[in-house]
Amino acid sequence: MTTSASSEHSALGPLLAAIHSPEDVKALPESDLPKLAEEIRHSLITCLSRTGGHLGPNLGVVELSVALHRVFSTPQDRFVFDVAHQGYVHKMLTGRADRIHTMRTYKGLNGFLLRSESEHDSYGAGHAGTALSAALGMAAARDLAKEDSHVVAVAGDAAFTCGPTLEALNNIAETTKRFIVVLNDNEWSIDKNVGAIARYFNALQTHSTYASVRNTAAEFVEKVAGKAVRKLAHKVEEGAKNLLFPNVLFEKFGLRYYGPIDGHDLPLLVRTFEHLKTLHEPVVLHIITEKGRGYQPALDNPGKFHGLGAYKIEDGSTDLSATPTCSDIFGRTVTDMAKTDEKMVAITAAMPGGTKLEIFKKELPGRYYDVGIAEEHAALFACGMATKGFKPFLAIYSTFMQRAYDMIVHDMALQNLPVRLCMDRGGLSGDDGPTHHGLFDIGYLRPVPGIVHMQPANEAEFVAMLKWMANYEAGPSAIRYPRGPINGSPLDAPVPPIELGKAVVVSEGVDVALIGLGTLFGMAEKTKELLEARGLSVALVNPRFIKPLDNAVFERMAKQCKVVCTFEDHVLHNGFGCGVIELLSDAGITTPVERIGWPDEFVEHGKPDILMKLHGLTAEAAVEKVMKHF
Amino acid sequence: MTTSASSEHSALGPLLAAIHSPEDVKALPESDLPKLAEEIRHSLITCLSRTGGHLGPNLGVVELSVALHRVFSTPQDRFVFDVAHQGYVHKMLTGRADRIHTMRTYKGLNGFLLRSESEHDSYGAGHAGTALSAALGMAAARDLAKEDSHVVAVAGDAAFTCGPTLEALNNIAETTKRFIVVLNDNEWSIDKNVGAIARYFNALQTHSTYASVRNTAAEFVEKVAGKAVRKLAHKVEEGAKNLLFPNVLFEKFGLRYYGPIDGHDLPLLVRTFEHLKTLHEPVVLHIITEKGRGYQPALDNPGKFHGLGAYKIEDGSTDLSATPTCSDIFGRTVTDMAKTDEKMVAITAAMPGGTKLEIFKKELPGRYYDVGIAEEHAALFACGMATKGFKPFLAIYSTFMQRAYDMIVHDMALQNLPVRLCMDRGGLSGDDGPTHHGLFDIGYLRPVPGIVHMQPANEAEFVAMLKWMANYEAGPSAIRYPRGPINGSPLDAPVPPIELGKAVVVSEGVDVALIGLGTLFGMAEKTKELLEARGLSVALVNPRFIKPLDNAVFERMAKQCKVVCTFEDHVLHNGFGCGVIELLSDAGITTPVERIGWPDEFVEHGKPDILMKLHGLTAEAAVEKVMKHF
Repeated sequence: MTTSASSEHSALGPLLAAIHSPEDVKALPESDLPKLAEEIRHSLITCLSRTGGHLGPNLGVVELSVALHRVFSTPQDRFVFDVAHQGYVHKMLTGRADRIHTMRTYKGLNGFLLRSESEHDSYGAGHAGTALSAALGMAAARDLAKEDSHVVAVAGDAAFTCGPTLEALNNIAETTKRFIVVLNDNEWSIDKNVGAIARYFNALQTHSTYASVRNTAAEFVEKVAGKAVRKLAHKVEEGAKNLLFPNVLFEKFGLRYYGPIDGHDLPLLVRTFEHLKTLHEPVVLHIITEKGRGYQPALDNPGKFHGLGAYKIEDGSTDLSATPTCSDIFGRTVTDMAKTDEKMVAITAAMPGGTKLEIFKKELPGRYYDVGIAEEHAALFACGMATKGFKPFLAIYSTFMQRAYDMIVHDMALQNLPVRLCMDRGGLSGDDGPTHHGLFDIGYLRPVPGIVHMQPANEAEFVAMLKWMANYEAGPSAIRYPRGPINGSPLDAPVPPIELGKAVVVSEGVDVALIGLGTLFGMAEKTKELLEARGLSVALVNPRFIKPLDNAVFERMAKQCKVVCTFEDHVLHNGFGCGVIELLSDAGITTPVERIGWPDEFVEHGKPDILMKLHGLTAEAAVEKVMKHF
Repeated sequence: MTTSASSEHSALGPLLAAIHSPEDVKALPESDLPKLAEEIRHSLITCLSRTGGHLGPNLGVVELSVALHRVFSTPQDRFVFDVAHQGYVHKMLTGRADRIHTMRTYKGLNGFLLRSESEHDSYGAGHAGTALSAALGMAAARDLAKEDSHVVAVAGDAAFTCGPTLEALNNIAETTKRFIVVLNDNEWSIDKNVGAIARYFNALQTHSTYASVRNTAAEFVEKVAGKAVRKLAHKVEEGAKNLLFPNVLFEKFGLRYYGPIDGHDLPLLVRTFEHLKTLHEPVVLHIITEKGRGYQPALDNPGKFHGLGAYKIEDGSTDLSATPTCSDIFGRTVTDMAKTDEKMVAITAAMPGGTKLEIFKKELPGRYYDVGIAEEHAALFACGMATKGFKPFLAIYSTFMQRAYDMIVHDMALQNLPVRLCMDRGGLSGDDGPTHHGLFDIGYLRPVPGIVHMQPANEAEFVAMLKWMANYEAGPSAIRYPRGPINGSPLDAPVPPIELGKAVVVSEGVDVALIGLGTLFGMAEKTKELLEARGLSVALVNPRFIKPLDNAVFERMAKQCKVVCTFEDHVLHNGFGCGVIELLSDAGITTPVERIGWPDEFVEHGKPDILMKLHGLTAEAAVEKVMKHF
């Protein structure tokens, strides 16, 4: 691909097309910066309309990213972006503008930051709340190495509801004297921010004197541009703070607090960073930004434009799929169930939209709890409610559930508390890539005693399993279900009753036994067709339960068939098929077991069909493995 | 056992012997309470001198526990004790005084709280930082059920360095209007508390006017004992706070702050709780207590008496074992290595004593980081340092490493950062029970791509592995090692060189292959002797690596022998032996595999030899399993 063709695809304006590294950002005349920002926004809006992505957050940090690269010098200096879904502009300014149209596509740019993608990406992410800690580690290393470089952590307001961020805050002041935290306050996490810290930030923003404060802040920075007046600066700032700002929270943690300032005022940002880089004390700079800045549809609907698929540039409209996703079904089903079961409560960690608990929130607000990005607290809170006889449905993506692992072991399972773990995005997540794939939950849950774990093979079974969970009170239970639909089957299709630890034998056979877990049950069905076309007698099993496994059925199948093949949307190591192998080994059955699942490596981003083909998760690959035995 | 015999063993005084439930605490004349407290202390000091246990923390909460049971009524009201190692007095006041001498022994009282032990234990624990969240879940459930009961969370100052506690703080004010947090401030976590929050608490305690404040606080409570004067109370308190106390941290989170008051002044505590239970807003009561109160050796050495084994009552002396523990060897070895490798750094989450990084702290303070009870931050901080070319040794018990699981997956492994996970207490923890056993780490680490995982079979190999890790820079590596020694062998014994993924074939054989992982290698050796006595030819393998497994050796062994037997100090599900079964299955080898390891249930507390015999982790059990095949 030639540069001009790339530029065309990336909708690059002339200034942006000439930016190949941060040095080029520094070389631009200051008067060109507003135009550069405009070109960045144009490119973002144009490219993401085709690929989808985190448009809103990136439109909000255009000026911030330009200012950071204007003042600091990566890779010597380091920026650590929390969650890193707001790193697109940083990518554009570090030599990747001509590939922005490949965002989130296979072999294209990752939608988050990756250390392997650029030397300017000093730290990757995808989960929230890690930036301050990781950046503090860098600062400590910098101090030990006696280097003269800067570390800047950029975190949204929502990250401050998150345990790791707060743990980091507690450690900053005694770890280093040179550390810059940018609090990018857009009054909005993925969903509306919650809790005391959110109220605190909101209080800052809605303060009646905010407009005049901004001017004051600008004047302040003007005054302190030179080092000589730093002392005065502190005095001015002290005065301002005592007058107006409840900034004591940060100061309690030993960080000097600056702001709030307008995060879209590029000259102000540049001058402020020039000042902050001269300081020898840890600081937090509070900037106010607007998610979706410069694109009216994103401003009108910040939730939708946080992250989305392709949209029409003119009005931001998106194709609404007719097929309900598992999240849709989950939100609707638990809400309906809760209407006749007053013990049911729903808990989310800042994801009412993603998990579709927004339905529950709207219809049963009294039993809905959004705790912020705080998965550990969410799990513990659910445990507390369960001790009082309530039925908590805790909806957290499989990959984010890793945050609550200790609570699952130590609080939920050990105390046998009937919390329902509803693990959305269980399996490959596709475009979002390895930070969001939910490929480890069988591995981490199966060793834990007493947790029931399920995965449905179709939509109607999903509903039946959720209903079964509501009545399962003997201990914790978990259900994993994919992003999007399973196989799009009707919700009212007939479903054999769910019984604890019982698989469904869909068809009998004597040559091959195919055990297709959940989302990959359809692949097992297709494999059956292909094998039958070759004249084999094929049994097909829907295991339903990952734990406890249906020993009786699997042992019988292994005895009556010449080969068993398992299918799972999970890594093979310590996965579902591994459990089947283990149980057959314990039963002394030596029938060979072939397995379809993800390899022992982190799977990249891309469309699921591409990735599945690449890694051998296809019916054809299964046929090949099975046919080795005939 | 008769009551009098129990009483004798438990060293119960007459008042304590008559306490069979909290109702009996309430029935005592107030003038008897100091005597009751004295009897409790006597019983604690006497009983724990034989069984060991958390003496210091419990001596510190005698008055608090009595006051709580005097004012509130469990099980309707609920106390949630953070970590719950300070729950012994609560146990004594809830019908278990006559069994306090059985503390931490097999079938005796658990050293923490267990829901299964008493209806008065509303929530169990063992890991820090869970109390506020769990209690908040109970309060939310109470509100939904429109019950009129109280929830009191009791947490030490160290718990406030911990993410889940801070996440909970952020959620209290908007979740409930009736919630009591007791901040039990003893200026001392297990080790000296760290970070900004600790400084903040210390500032409160060391304030020059503290003594007079205590009196003021007492007067204040006197004044507000009646409901009528509540409004005045707030005014008084407001005035006091603005004058003296930097209590804004809590107030920022929407909790009304009371204190600090003397946590050993029983009448003051009782009157304060009587007042707090009338309030309709969430509150935090800050009490100052003394760890080890009433026992001079514990006051003189609070670190040692936080938790310890048997001691002489007269002087608190303990038998010092001549055999160095793995923790001793770890602390000494990494410190010595770091003296010649300036890139090595050591990180602990509030456990310099337990992990023996106190040696590193003392000798290389500049490269030692104690981040508080903040495992998530610790792991992220280590990742940040690794990105700058440093070599972080992160020492966290296996069970507490669960807290950092998401960081291990999402930050460490995905970014391939060479952090060294040093997992002390990998395997059964014994007396501490299920909250402290480290029996899941193979299960949760093996599915994660790219993590090297090891376990040494003797002390010299442990040292060799630590040295190997220091030079392994290709990605994260983990080592699990037991509480106490491995087999007590000399550190300078010859060790074959460590090679990535290579097992050591200790002896060849053609009938049985025994694969003894780490601590259980000795059991495999003994099994070999027993089998050889029966005329079998037995191969013995020290696998060294849990991941990557030595496919070549295991495949060869399985091919040349009639049966394989694995040994591991870990649950069998998704454990080491499971990995061996998986690799043999993938290689198409059908040699039967027998496994020795822990079952799919939470293992109780008790001496390891009792528990191992009970659950079939013995050479004799292995022989029986193997002999089925001959």
